[in-house]
Amino acid sequence: MKKFTDPAKLQKWCRERRAAGAKIALVPTMGYLHEGHVSLIKEAVRRGADEIVVSVFVNPVQFGPNEDYDKYPRDEKADWKKCREAGATAVFFPTPANMYLDRHSVYVTEEDLSRGLCGARRPGHFRGVCTVVAKLFNLSHAHFAVFGHKDFQQAQIIKRMVRDLNFDLDIVVAPIVREETGLAKSSRNTYLSAAEKESALAISKSLYALKGGERAAAAKKKIASALEKAGLKTDYVEVVDVETLEDAKTVAPGTCVLVAAYCGKTRLIDNREF
Amino acid sequence: MKKFTDPAKLQKWCRERRAAGAKIALVPTMGYLHEGHVSLIKEAVRRGADEIVVSVFVNPVQFGPNEDYDKYPRDEKADWKKCREAGATAVFFPTPANMYLDRHSVYVTEEDLSRGLCGARRPGHFRGVCTVVAKLFNLSHAHFAVFGHKDFQQAQIIKRMVRDLNFDLDIVVAPIVREETGLAKSSRNTYLSAAEKESALAISKSLYALKGGERAAAAKKKIASALEKAGLKTDYVEVVDVETLEDAKTVAPGTCVLVAAYCGKTRLIDNREF
Repeated sequence: MKKFTDPAKLQKWCRERRAAGAKIALVPTMGYLHEGHVSLIKEAVRRGADEIVVSVFVNPVQFGPNEDYDKYPRDEKADWKKCREAGATAVFFPTPANMYLDRHSVYVTEEDLSRGLCGARRPGHFRGVCTVVAKLFNLSHAHFAVFGHKDFQQAQIIKRMVRDLNFDLDIVVAPIVREETGLAKSSRNTYLSAAEKESALAISKSLYALKGGERAAAAKKKIASALEKAGLKTDYVEVVDVETLEDAKTVAPGTCVLVAAYCGKTRLIDNREF
Repeated sequence: MKKFTDPAKLQKWCRERRAAGAKIALVPTMGYLHEGHVSLIKEAVRRGADEIVVSVFVNPVQFGPNEDYDKYPRDEKADWKKCREAGATAVFFPTPANMYLDRHSVYVTEEDLSRGLCGARRPGHFRGVCTVVAKLFNLSHAHFAVFGHKDFQQAQIIKRMVRDLNFDLDIVVAPIVREETGLAKSSRNTYLSAAEKESALAISKSLYALKGGERAAAAKKKIASALEKAGLKTDYVEVVDVETLEDAKTVAPGTCVLVAAYCGKTRLIDNREF
């Protein structure tokens, strides 16, 4: 497995591998890899990629000033091992300084799908995401890139970016991986105490208690009160159309129910597509 | 010479040509081609490109609401002929509808070099330029793209975009082509009456009257009064550092003197790099 830290070296290698006929997959991550990330790498293996580039980069531009950029967990050694075991052929560990050069001034913005949900609560977040992902697409010469369904709004925004800027690659969205308890895997779960992990189960439990067919308003109320009962602070509960991310009236096929909630100081997200 | 109108078909062809080992050049234009554009195509020929894709697209997103989008001159037939004669191998004539799909929502912005000069006078202009050029880069799989020095600020912004978003291609900037009189070639010259064309010469004449070494303030005053004398309305005269586009104190190597002026209702730009 190859290791890159210099964007120019990664790009040259990817360019050459692509010219030699290799099918290239990109798996963008912020590191501290868990089974969710591993499943993305395995999805790339399953799809027959010859080269699987995993990027491990805690992207400062997508964090707000009061968010957890500094304390976001990092473990390069463990990430390296997990990438190798899962079937990656290259890992890219760039630094903020080599990703954002002096006087960096170009950004990619998405102005429709990012208005609500996490975009409304985290101003600038998706601008940071789109910018770094556009960079990674260009660096990797990938034929396809794999994202997780847990960041559903992100996945839809990236697909829109690919469409609107004509990036020549496919976006694959892989299912959420959960603990046996139902809790969606997240690098931020490491912030949770044992008691908080227990409370956090209200999120997935209330999502999976829905049967489909409910009025959106009723479903939202039900989830919000389950979260409150468990001691979580609801950030949002929404039922949206999967394509437009606009409010849906009913929990039905073609909609997604999304939750963001604080468990202590930790903000968790989860969702269920119908 | 191939003709494309569908972005997906252009992209597929470029992808396949690149995979087959062809060196691809892109020449982005708004059509109504003149000798300036022709020189860009010939520069691509000179650099040994196997495929030279000329895009002809009056990009609505880079025009302000009170600008000349509707009346911007168009002549596909003449453009086709000039492309063929100059050595292009493909021409791309997209439509606004197939470049900007329903709910288009992703844009590329540059927030440093675009603050002054034309960026200050034409809000949103460079956002439109960066967005369409990013799209064309992705559609063409180009190894290099050729831009004209006449749009100097644009060329510097595009270079910054390539650097900051890690586009894997080179930017070539070709010199300004002038009429025998000195007037910089521009599709907008077609708006000028014979008398206006005569007055417009004050722009290039005053730029080339500079000897280098002058204080910027004195040079700017000299140009502005020459323009006034010729009956033009100065939009801006600036002396800037070529890399940062920040004000320079002296007209000296590493600076560029830029002029924008109205000749009747027609806005003309020109510049001279020292």
